[in-house]
Amino acid sequence: MIRVGIVGASGYTGAELARLLANHPEVELTVATSRQYAGKPLSQAFPSLRGRVDLLCEDLQIADLVDRAELFFTAVPHQTAMSIVPQLLAAGKKVVDLSADFRLRDAGVYEQWYQAHSAKDLLSRAVYGLPELYREKIACTALVANPGCYPTSVILALAPLLRAGVIDPETIVIDSKSGVSGAGRTAQVGSLYCEVADGFKAYKVAEHRHTPEIEQELSVLSGRQVTVSFTPHLVPMSRGILSTIYARVNGAEPDLSELYQDFYRNETFVRLCPPNQYPATQYVRGSNYCDIGCKYDPRTGRLIVLSAIDNVVKGASGQAVQNMNIICGFPEQTGLMVVPFFP
Amino acid sequence: MIRVGIVGASGYTGAELARLLANHPEVELTVATSRQYAGKPLSQAFPSLRGRVDLLCEDLQIADLVDRAELFFTAVPHQTAMSIVPQLLAAGKKVVDLSADFRLRDAGVYEQWYQAHSAKDLLSRAVYGLPELYREKIACTALVANPGCYPTSVILALAPLLRAGVIDPETIVIDSKSGVSGAGRTAQVGSLYCEVADGFKAYKVAEHRHTPEIEQELSVLSGRQVTVSFTPHLVPMSRGILSTIYARVNGAEPDLSELYQDFYRNETFVRLCPPNQYPATQYVRGSNYCDIGCKYDPRTGRLIVLSAIDNVVKGASGQAVQNMNIICGFPEQTGLMVVPFFP
Amino acid sequence: MIRVGIVGASGYTGAELARLLANHPEVELTVATSRQYAGKPLSQAFPSLRGRVDLLCEDLQIADLVDRAELFFTAVPHQTAMSIVPQLLAAGKKVVDLSADFRLRDAGVYEQWYQAHSAKDLLSRAVYGLPELYREKIACTALVANPGCYPTSVILALAPLLRAGVIDPETIVIDSKSGVSGAGRTAQVGSLYCEVADGFKAYKVAEHRHTPEIEQELSVLSGRQVTVSFTPHLVPMSRGILSTIYARVNGAEPDLSELYQDFYRNETFVRLCPPNQYPATQYVRGSNYCDIGCKYDPRTGRLIVLSAIDNVVKGASGQAVQNMNIICGFPEQTGLMVVPFFP
Amino acid sequence: MIRVGIVGASGYTGAELARLLANHPEVELTVATSRQYAGKPLSQAFPSLRGRVDLLCEDLQIADLVDRAELFFTAVPHQTAMSIVPQLLAAGKKVVDLSADFRLRDAGVYEQWYQAHSAKDLLSRAVYGLPELYREKIACTALVANPGCYPTSVILALAPLLRAGVIDPETIVIDSKSGVSGAGRTAQVGSLYCEVADGFKAYKVAEHRHTPEIEQELSVLSGRQVTVSFTPHLVPMSRGILSTIYARVNGAEPDLSELYQDFYRNETFVRLCPPNQYPATQYVRGSNYCDIGCKYDPRTGRLIVLSAIDNVVKGASGQAVQNMNIICGFPEQTGLMVVPFFP
Repeated sequence: MIRVGIVGASGYTGAELARLLANHPEVELTVATSRQYAGKPLSQAFPSLRGRVDLLCEDLQIADLVDRAELFFTAVPHQTAMSIVPQLLAAGKKVVDLSADFRLRDAGVYEQWYQAHSAKDLLSRAVYGLPELYREKIACTALVANPGCYPTSVILALAPLLRAGVIDPETIVIDSKSGVSGAGRTAQVGSLYCEVADGFKAYKVAEHRHTPEIEQELSVLSGRQVTVSFTPHLVPMSRGILSTIYARVNGAEPDLSELYQDFYRNETFVRLCPPNQYPATQYVRGSNYCDIGCKYDPRTGRLIVLSAIDNVVKGASGQAVQNMNIICGFPEQTGLMVVPFFP
Repeated sequence: MIRVGIVGASGYTGAELARLLANHPEVELTVATSRQYAGKPLSQAFPSLRGRVDLLCEDLQIADLVDRAELFFTAVPHQTAMSIVPQLLAAGKKVVDLSADFRLRDAGVYEQWYQAHSAKDLLSRAVYGLPELYREKIACTALVANPGCYPTSVILALAPLLRAGVIDPETIVIDSKSGVSGAGRTAQVGSLYCEVADGFKAYKVAEHRHTPEIEQELSVLSGRQVTVSFTPHLVPMSRGILSTIYARVNGAEPDLSELYQDFYRNETFVRLCPPNQYPATQYVRGSNYCDIGCKYDPRTGRLIVLSAIDNVVKGASGQAVQNMNIICGFPEQTGLMVVPFFP
Repeated sequence: MIRVGIVGASGYTGAELARLLANHPEVELTVATSRQYAGKPLSQAFPSLRGRVDLLCEDLQIADLVDRAELFFTAVPHQTAMSIVPQLLAAGKKVVDLSADFRLRDAGVYEQWYQAHSAKDLLSRAVYGLPELYREKIACTALVANPGCYPTSVILALAPLLRAGVIDPETIVIDSKSGVSGAGRTAQVGSLYCEVADGFKAYKVAEHRHTPEIEQELSVLSGRQVTVSFTPHLVPMSRGILSTIYARVNGAEPDLSELYQDFYRNETFVRLCPPNQYPATQYVRGSNYCDIGCKYDPRTGRLIVLSAIDNVVKGASGQAVQNMNIICGFPEQTGLMVVPFFP
Repeated sequence: MIRVGIVGASGYTGAELARLLANHPEVELTVATSRQYAGKPLSQAFPSLRGRVDLLCEDLQIADLVDRAELFFTAVPHQTAMSIVPQLLAAGKKVVDLSADFRLRDAGVYEQWYQAHSAKDLLSRAVYGLPELYREKIACTALVANPGCYPTSVILALAPLLRAGVIDPETIVIDSKSGVSGAGRTAQVGSLYCEVADGFKAYKVAEHRHTPEIEQELSVLSGRQVTVSFTPHLVPMSRGILSTIYARVNGAEPDLSELYQDFYRNETFVRLCPPNQYPATQYVRGSNYCDIGCKYDPRTGRLIVLSAIDNVVKGASGQAVQNMNIICGFPEQTGLMVVPFFP
């Protein structure tokens, strides 16, 4: 039994960590920080947790925090994370950081899309926490940069194709759709029920910050610099991301079933759809699965790849627990075998 | 490890049984019947179950079914259940029946609200499967009549008040609201997305069949014949029931906190809201909890009691698993400690 | 053609006034105030209005405002209204006030449920703007207190019964359900998509401020002091209110069809449901209609009355335009014959 | 005043025609056919129409129908339309056909994507009813093939670019998202509330029948054969289509504002978004508008064009009324100036 803490527990990813850890047999949640709910039980912020996670939220200095756990999830906004994580590491703690601050290996790219970086020296120590690609490195690090939600859905969908070199990376178009929880629990007009319900729209067209993260990993996979079109959209649903990805095939139609089955043969959390079936976010809801389906269109010579995840689980907190399991040496699926919740 | 079967697996309650049993350590799901999906994996009907419940659906005669399991969940429509359950019992099987066929102890009342009953002799053997009230009897029966969704929410809300005699049963008004999954997976215009979304309405005003079930149990609790006003409504959400219940208080303001805490002190699945907090269906979603809150209004002399359940879990399949646990002697919460899923 | 202005145009009721006035042949919208959007077109706040209402929002002092129009809609929060309305009236303007500030005739009751009232002298001049009850008085006033959304749905539902004396006012229980637009366009966590979607809950149990407004009008109708139980609920939909109302009948079953048809014979905006049909909010969406249905339950001796309105139209801006039409001598339905929008 | 009829009035497009025609000053709806609702008022099928369109539905032979109106909207499934339309034309009637049967000029293409065509001789007489492109031809025809919903959103978005030759047609990728009303009012499991709500998925990947219709018109616009990738998705909302379209630019960044403003300068129903603003379905809901926005991405050399329509209005019944206005010589916007309905 190891002790774990959540820094920034009153957002949706914090609450989801608490939900998942409540059923995890190997860890004890010993501390949850929140400025807003300091002194109140986390179950007051999230009544769903009543009777299950009644821990009091605290507003703590890092110095007071470090004695309370061996591993910390930092579920705070980018820029805040880079000021906290170094102190936790300096105190010998393990960290799974859910922000964007340690995902980009190139500080210059980070500073171009975000803002100045105050902990550049840690970038080389951080491991990009997509277990399906970096499992061995994750096992040996103290700092996991938990991937973004969109990048998780996109990278898992394209990895087998790029590794095998069957598509032309220049032609990749990524059209992604997310539920509203991706915007967090911040009170803002754009996330109000009445603004979102019964509607659909794109946002941050050609300028979303997950673009460089996607490109970084697709470049590694394909062995050359990849630039993509990426458009995120807002779906009137709470959870889920579906990415629809288009790319031209190099040469003849590839054997897609074999390609994907080989690549993901030993992966618990990637499920492949049978031919002519496609993923849907409602079939992964609440679970750590990434469902993938694809089709070759002979009329256009393009592949269409679709992937679905729960953005709060595989796209955030579930993947964070998966990374914790790897770091701590627990079986990777511990606490994560939640069956998707439908309808 | 005992073997269990689901008769009628391709509806929402069947799928939810499969979801819950997939994480139950003491039972093995060995057979699932469905006429419509015979020969196909249950995970084709419900892709959410892919990789977790890939059992093939079968269209079986009862005679072939009985060798396959020791306990059966019958998740079929009323009237169908009464033709199947007697055969299962005759073969020495245990049955948790999710239909309405064995819930009413008085065959005359059943026939007045439903239709002719062909297995009246079993009515006296059936135990009404609300564990919080009938735990001991459930443990000793072979036939559990799993309660209706609305009655579960109403009876748990009112039981402490009626037992203590603090309200006037003549004044009970029950205004209930349900998600659409209560209508099942049948293709019908009234359940289409476009008919339901962004709308709200009542249905079966003063004539819903759960009325006599509610009255039967409230009468037992209060020791005299109770007649209630009960109006169900349809909410544009998939899961959840919230019941808002009004009744006049006999005499002075009762100590509600004490009353409820005493009554439910040892219950795992009833959670009481602190004063001035009220239940919401989104805080019990996916779980077996019934959340209850109440308030005394001195202006009118009425109590307002509110209860929330997930109609597919505590209102159907979760409660069925809870009943199975009791019958089989497993700890009552086995497989049911799912933390509610929010947002 | 008269000139009209909207004070507080950037909320949902302000935008709905703009939508309705855009198709009104007798008035010109000449001024729209908004602190937040000052200097920007109203269609930037509400892109739905693009090309139709491109008026610039202004942040004006009342002194500058009064020259710009003959009639003003004040769509500002209560307490703000009472500081603006007296100045508009003093300048000889007509006012339809959408706040609660002038709805209660008894200042003491107002101060008990809201806060101190700074314009008590105007209370006797204000007319409660429910045209179906107060048409003649509205025609002669300069200050209309536009009714609350819940009260509109409740009072229209009960008026024929109370006037005829067929129900016992002591037994009235009102269970109302509203869409989220009722909470306005304010950024607050409780109105976020993820907090509301796929969920249902009550709020302000036994303490909602529309209670005294309902009681005031029901008391007038029944000729004696009426106290009611009133519980509002939040439905995951943008628009609509459905009220389910229970009351015991005095004596034998009344002839409900005749009662309602007589009462509303000449009303354009009240539609009566045929026997055994009931209103639904999706059938009045976007329109100024109030649909009413009812049923007598011989088992309990109670009537169940159901009414549905669009809370933003008949519950706010549509009724305000209806009141403007009456004050200005236009045919009452001018600009309001929008057919409900389904699905 | 001309008399018009709706053949197939009990679907969503039929009801929407009735809604729009109810406020149209130049026409009278004299007949509405429906097998299912024969003998019942249309307002029983759609209670939203109560008091406004209480016409009885009839199950009529064409011979009986033709005397009742001068113009007919055929809102029946493809294949049914091709058996009805020839008879209506033979009787000298004007027809706006909302099915797919007369949209494709090449019978061979039709038969490849649909089934055998029994009225091929009419294909050359039919005019594709997109007024922004074919206004003059529509004015002179007796048979308008009302465009599909997806094609309307796509063709209007791309027309200015293809006419100007600024994009490479080989690189067009169309990712479209539709509300559930596009699936019609048929009772089918896939359209149930619980299957669709809180979820998102693609369907008919690389095989949707609107593909050849899109390609036909894009080919005309670009002057050469165009083949596109087109993926439709299902959004948990009732109405609306948003299309996100990607294409590589030929040469340098074009002046998009000028291009679109020139092309649509005189169009009432096309609204262009200001730079860095994008359309959303909730801003065109209930209206006949098509909102268009676009952005050039210098990183990839691609344009991203977004368009939003209400699939039931501009994507079906509103466009049909627009076509009727043109055929009949009414001002084109008559009865169609509904302001979008938000929230």
